[in-house]
Amino acid sequence: MKVDLNCDLGEAFGNYSFGGDEQIIPLITSANVACGFHAGDQHVMNQTIKRAKEHNIGIGAHPGLPDLQGFGRRNMDLSPDEIYDTVIYQLGALSGFCKIHNVKINHVKPHGALYQMGARDKDIAHAIAQAVYDFDESLYYVGLSNTLLISEAQKIGLKTASEVFADRRYEDDGQLVSRKADDALITDTNEAIAQVVKMVKSKSVITKNNREIDIEADTICVHGDGAHALEFVSEIKERLSKEGVSITKLGG
Amino acid sequence: MKVDLNCDLGEAFGNYSFGGDEQIIPLITSANVACGFHAGDQHVMNQTIKRAKEHNIGIGAHPGLPDLQGFGRRNMDLSPDEIYDTVIYQLGALSGFCKIHNVKINHVKPHGALYQMGARDKDIAHAIAQAVYDFDESLYYVGLSNTLLISEAQKIGLKTASEVFADRRYEDDGQLVSRKADDALITDTNEAIAQVVKMVKSKSVITKNNREIDIEADTICVHGDGAHALEFVSEIKERLSKEGVSITKLGG
Amino acid sequence: MKVDLNCDLGEAFGNYSFGGDEQIIPLITSANVACGFHAGDQHVMNQTIKRAKEHNIGIGAHPGLPDLQGFGRRNMDLSPDEIYDTVIYQLGALSGFCKIHNVKINHVKPHGALYQMGARDKDIAHAIAQAVYDFDESLYYVGLSNTLLISEAQKIGLKTASEVFADRRYEDDGQLVSRKADDALITDTNEAIAQVVKMVKSKSVITKNNREIDIEADTICVHGDGAHALEFVSEIKERLSKEGVSITKLGG
Amino acid sequence: MKVDLNCDLGEAFGNYSFGGDEQIIPLITSANVACGFHAGDQHVMNQTIKRAKEHNIGIGAHPGLPDLQGFGRRNMDLSPDEIYDTVIYQLGALSGFCKIHNVKINHVKPHGALYQMGARDKDIAHAIAQAVYDFDESLYYVGLSNTLLISEAQKIGLKTASEVFADRRYEDDGQLVSRKADDALITDTNEAIAQVVKMVKSKSVITKNNREIDIEADTICVHGDGAHALEFVSEIKERLSKEGVSITKLGG
Repeated sequence: MKVDLNCDLGEAFGNYSFGGDEQIIPLITSANVACGFHAGDQHVMNQTIKRAKEHNIGIGAHPGLPDLQGFGRRNMDLSPDEIYDTVIYQLGALSGFCKIHNVKINHVKPHGALYQMGARDKDIAHAIAQAVYDFDESLYYVGLSNTLLISEAQKIGLKTASEVFADRRYEDDGQLVSRKADDALITDTNEAIAQVVKMVKSKSVITKNNREIDIEADTICVHGDGAHALEFVSEIKERLSKEGVSITKLGG
Repeated sequence: MKVDLNCDLGEAFGNYSFGGDEQIIPLITSANVACGFHAGDQHVMNQTIKRAKEHNIGIGAHPGLPDLQGFGRRNMDLSPDEIYDTVIYQLGALSGFCKIHNVKINHVKPHGALYQMGARDKDIAHAIAQAVYDFDESLYYVGLSNTLLISEAQKIGLKTASEVFADRRYEDDGQLVSRKADDALITDTNEAIAQVVKMVKSKSVITKNNREIDIEADTICVHGDGAHALEFVSEIKERLSKEGVSITKLGG
Repeated sequence: MKVDLNCDLGEAFGNYSFGGDEQIIPLITSANVACGFHAGDQHVMNQTIKRAKEHNIGIGAHPGLPDLQGFGRRNMDLSPDEIYDTVIYQLGALSGFCKIHNVKINHVKPHGALYQMGARDKDIAHAIAQAVYDFDESLYYVGLSNTLLISEAQKIGLKTASEVFADRRYEDDGQLVSRKADDALITDTNEAIAQVVKMVKSKSVITKNNREIDIEADTICVHGDGAHALEFVSEIKERLSKEGVSITKLGG
Repeated sequence: MKVDLNCDLGEAFGNYSFGGDEQIIPLITSANVACGFHAGDQHVMNQTIKRAKEHNIGIGAHPGLPDLQGFGRRNMDLSPDEIYDTVIYQLGALSGFCKIHNVKINHVKPHGALYQMGARDKDIAHAIAQAVYDFDESLYYVGLSNTLLISEAQKIGLKTASEVFADRRYEDDGQLVSRKADDALITDTNEAIAQVVKMVKSKSVITKNNREIDIEADTICVHGDGAHALEFVSEIKERLSKEGVSITKLGG
């Protein structure tokens, strides 16, 4: 039994620092590296790939919408063709830095609004997955568990990794409770860790309505910033180890 | 005896059209494709690679400074490290579109101010060439004949292609007469064509001071826009053919 | 009886030309000047204000979404607060160029997706109108006739100018038939001109379902680019004059 | 005897925070507010003007080069006309936010590379100053003491405020010792404070070669970020007060 721990990295830009990349890298198994559209720039990308290589973690492209000011979190009405090209550009750009460091992209995870739009819209989900497939059909594709991101990618023939969140509550249909709802977040650490363990070990989760539903949990999304982020990740790792779950990058 | 004809392509952006790509493509042997920093965008790049493939011409990356408003023509004081990363990013991005169209980048030619800065500054010339080499050491590197662009790239071990201009006058030291000077341009078509033929066939050029100096002419820069651009390119081609010079892409 | 003829101007950017500003300016009474977010830049804005002043036409700010690549035509999920700030920034920027040319902004017309979003969403319509009011409550506010753009602006206390389109067909509720529909456009010039005359003179329009509905027509949107654009504008002007309608800028 | 304390503010962007605006604002008398080109955005600008108004400090526009990635610190080869328009645009944009908060811009201080370029190049210095004058001839213009920034602005007729640095060493000609030199910075707090007091009270400074030269010190540049920044500013204020120097905004 195994699971991957992924975290968004390389989200600094120019003179602006962001996140705690150096602190979180030793704790995770996969890095989602920003590609310069919603965050990151060519210098940050170079340094991030170098760091990820040093720690031997899985390198992922983390393409986003062309909206630096909105950090790629604001929906934009791009056509599927525009999304396809937007993803190809960013995968290519990141692969340039992988090339000079002699490493390979291992996975792709869409960012922010692109991820959310793909989870809900079939054409967009298809466009993202097709771009990944056309770029390199051997890549792992990370998407929200139980959504179109996963099903459309599987149709195309990509290897998928279903992503779950430790601290987010789930609806009965397997979707995340909206952040706008009061009960969106699990604020108790023990409860969050228990949810993760259950998702990984029993492939199920208890929804906000107290039902048990199926869920795939191939990779867990964690964060490097925030007051207790590192501590929380350490606790998740410790607990999963105790439960006999090995933490390893996708395909590892 | 052979020579390449190269032209900048894919310089449209979003809603803005630019150049006469469709008209010039059938006449040239190499395309320098803008990579989204000084011009071009992800959609234009996709289409341009598709077109270049259809016409079986050599595909080149044409990286520029991050200055869309200035079209990459305004010098910017980037450090060699910043330039290195800027070139890697753009080579990678273009290679993404090459991947989905199953073609390869054949050459790299820096654009505008990046080209000019590299021709005059050893550290910048080195940074650009090193980026190209680290990305793919088998690429042809196009730079202004008789400049640091060429010599630094050769030191690193890149295959170089010295570029000449049909309609620009030369200084005694092999540099181009500055565009700010009155006699920078050769406006007479016959004189321009005669200069090209001489450069290609005798590897020499008559300078503005009427001296004959050595010059390498592996590739000739032509343009797709302008009133008589297409006609001029056709005449160059015809005349070179008559002189027994075959027109073929770099390495072709 | 009078009406204004407005046209989007100053949509060039950097090295990219756009539209036929010089040709259309003598034919119109109001210019909607792009402010650098969806199109235009600081140099284009300076020149456009200068030209508009020379022709003594009404100067309008034409703020758009921060999406140069999409020309401001792609919906973006900005909050009302973000939209408010986005409009203030652009109004201010344009007013800088008005100041140096000693002219005043006369009206504001939101651009593209911002216009469309405001026509349909009350909070967005309110945010745009509030920004215009807070910036300068004496400005005319141009919005699509019969929509929230107009009603929200009137609630706040702005002077509004209802905009109509010569070549677009109308729904029974006064909205434009979507461009995606087959019958969105009136392609026959005489029919288009007749529609304009009717809207201005009788304050009504015949919908696609052949009903007659009320419509305010304070200003008519025309275009400077396109094959027959100038000819079409000239014909509209001529016909309106014959009908006794004077063509004059808002408030003029 | 009086002097102004100015600090760069509003340099956050989108999701990126920057500086310690809230902490430094109570200690200073003038804010140089970024205008969205090298840093800042429309939302940050709105908030920054609101804050500056609440603390009743002088509001200054802080226009920079269009280079967010380089934070406006990299020289760019813009023509004087381009610089003029670039300054007008940013002054206008900031004035939009001043308008809605019912405050006035009090001064202008060019940022980073624009400031440095203007200090050394007469045409650029003239272009910046002319833009400020044309926009509003009543504004104070802040520039490096003893440089073209000041002399060109005075020629045009602007009220100038000569800026000095507490922690930078001076050349015999009144220029700052380059940051690249070993002795560029005064690292001893007491020495730095003594230099400030001397500059303000005796209008002179001891250069790196131990000569005493004349210097105007109308405003002192301080910083809100850095380990001991706030403490240092507090000490400067205390010491100046003891010396009978009142700390007040430009024109105050």
